[in-house]
Amino acid sequence: LALDFLKVKTADAVVVKAPQLRQQVVEILIAVKVTRQDAEITADILVESDLRGVDSHGCGNVVGYATRIQQGTTKAQGDVRVISESPSSALITNDWGLGFAGAHAAMSMAMDKAAETGMGAVTVRDGQHIGMLMYYPLMCVRRDMIGLAMTNGAPCVRPAGGAQAMLGTNPIAFGAPAGEEPPFLYDAATSVVAMGKIGIARRLGVPLPPGWAADREGDWIKEPPAGRSPNWSLAPVGGDRVRGAHKGYGLSVMVDILCGVLSGGGYSALCREGDNHTFMLAMDISKYRPIDEFKSMMDDMIRALHATPPEPGTEKVLVAGDPEHETYLERSTRGIPLHRSIVDNMRAKAKEVRAPVLI
Amino acid sequence: LALDFLKVKTADAVVVKAPQLRQQVVEILIAVKVTRQDAEITADILVESDLRGVDSHGCGNVVGYATRIQQGTTKAQGDVRVISESPSSALITNDWGLGFAGAHAAMSMAMDKAAETGMGAVTVRDGQHIGMLMYYPLMCVRRDMIGLAMTNGAPCVRPAGGAQAMLGTNPIAFGAPAGEEPPFLYDAATSVVAMGKIGIARRLGVPLPPGWAADREGDWIKEPPAGRSPNWSLAPVGGDRVRGAHKGYGLSVMVDILCGVLSGGGYSALCREGDNHTFMLAMDISKYRPIDEFKSMMDDMIRALHATPPEPGTEKVLVAGDPEHETYLERSTRGIPLHRSIVDNMRAKAKEVRAPVLI
Repeated sequence: LALDFLKVKTADAVVVKAPQLRQQVVEILIAVKVTRQDAEITADILVESDLRGVDSHGCGNVVGYATRIQQGTTKAQGDVRVISESPSSALITNDWGLGFAGAHAAMSMAMDKAAETGMGAVTVRDGQHIGMLMYYPLMCVRRDMIGLAMTNGAPCVRPAGGAQAMLGTNPIAFGAPAGEEPPFLYDAATSVVAMGKIGIARRLGVPLPPGWAADREGDWIKEPPAGRSPNWSLAPVGGDRVRGAHKGYGLSVMVDILCGVLSGGGYSALCREGDNHTFMLAMDISKYRPIDEFKSMMDDMIRALHATPPEPGTEKVLVAGDPEHETYLERSTRGIPLHRSIVDNMRAKAKEVRAPVLI
Repeated sequence: LALDFLKVKTADAVVVKAPQLRQQVVEILIAVKVTRQDAEITADILVESDLRGVDSHGCGNVVGYATRIQQGTTKAQGDVRVISESPSSALITNDWGLGFAGAHAAMSMAMDKAAETGMGAVTVRDGQHIGMLMYYPLMCVRRDMIGLAMTNGAPCVRPAGGAQAMLGTNPIAFGAPAGEEPPFLYDAATSVVAMGKIGIARRLGVPLPPGWAADREGDWIKEPPAGRSPNWSLAPVGGDRVRGAHKGYGLSVMVDILCGVLSGGGYSALCREGDNHTFMLAMDISKYRPIDEFKSMMDDMIRALHATPPEPGTEKVLVAGDPEHETYLERSTRGIPLHRSIVDNMRAKAKEVRAPVLI
């Protein structure tokens, strides 16, 4: 759910249509020697993010990915391969290529296993950014499956009671199909906010609310910092102990175990900035109960939640995936409003790598 | 993690040894016609809870379970059986017997499937209270597996932005074994606190902190209410929007989907008080990577978290399972301090059902 004060102001926006934006991402990636297949997978995920209003994980990030490839931090063509496998499980390495390739392969594999045995879980080591996490459970939803995805990353979140970052934002995404209603699609960091929100707040020049980020003395900071540093860290979900920061912290370590320790890639504190190890799980609903009955009960549940009397100051109770679904409907027809600086950076990168400028 | 102000005061405590307490639970349950096997499973789980300091889910609850059996709300001998099954999945019904029977059977089944295929997930419908959720991943940890358990229940938690309870406390428990360190054992409601905490606060006569429970107008309440009512509800983890209440809400619905919708037993709003539908997942670590390497990395991670510089006012950064492990070491030798009223109620129930009084 996007907080209003973090939205791009109309005056700063350049509106671009999705197909054009997708093609621009593909061209930039191919220009830095990514295979067409991986470039298209990556572009699909980045565009889906922009279409759904998850601006922090949108196409603008291709500039950074291309730069990492140019610098050699990310391999242009990683050799994604299986390390170990059983009927419902697998461990694969992404071989330090673009994270999207391994993550997409992992969820595809998990779904194929689920179709056979009821469920599949694949953990991926040696990965890099994999974009909007919601994309992967969305792959499951499109196959009438339930999907769960998690990823870890370099430390920027303090444990409850700690004064130093030890955990990534370690998000969890979960999706389940409904019938007539949009699918349930949850995607949230186990930190109080995702790291991208701090960058957005800085770009928009708005102060951070208390409960988000603290300095080494444990005092909340207002000024959005320019980037990661040992001098500040995000709080886990809950913000403080009374509101459940120890719960957010525990969930974050759960993510770290499934992504970093189970894969052997390493827990957050062993990750360099940009590294991600990932866990993907798919469940075939029809192995449990008839899919139509499942979807019909999902519809009932979603409608009941929507019908909850709202508290004063709230217009309507939402369900995870609602705001992204609405944004999707709007942006897939009207186009995607990108912050001017993002468009400028993408154009500059395209020129630099001698890719056509399409936006 | 137990908040200090919720602990039983020494003056109000009666200390009972675990084996005695276990036997008292078994005798009460057998007296109301529960099978010896189910009575012992239930007693093991309740005692483990008391030993680990999870007082809200301890042996005192046997009084309520026995009463429900006497009233016919819970069957003394439910017919736990498989409705659908595949190599890694199953749906079973608990047939409205004691919840512990079906939950224990489900996790046992999930582990057996995991040993074959890498993982197993079993969802249980038509259940009742299953006690301390952490017990079930602990079963996995003892078999060198990773365990995940969730359960839903009757509404007492509002959705973010809602003014009415629509969700159970819908907890998540997760466990993973370590080598020399105690296992990672997470167990927490997706509400800001578990329902049991409100009862404890009331018994101890302490006010509720803001962020825990709100009335129909959305104002935080201080006086711990006597029981569930339409006039108040708990907040999701995070407490308010800025600190992530929408995340706690989303996780709660995820639990509801896996427990209530996947099983067909019904989401929270369809549950009567005391009903629970449950989801159990087990993963065989050795199918992914050698168990010794996994455990060694777990040790490293846990030690790194313990070594985090604490923020002012915190003595040491803890890891999920630490306080329960310490309490376990203490209580398994010195005995379990039960609130006097709990002992009185257990004795009274034993007399009423003509079971021997052992505590």
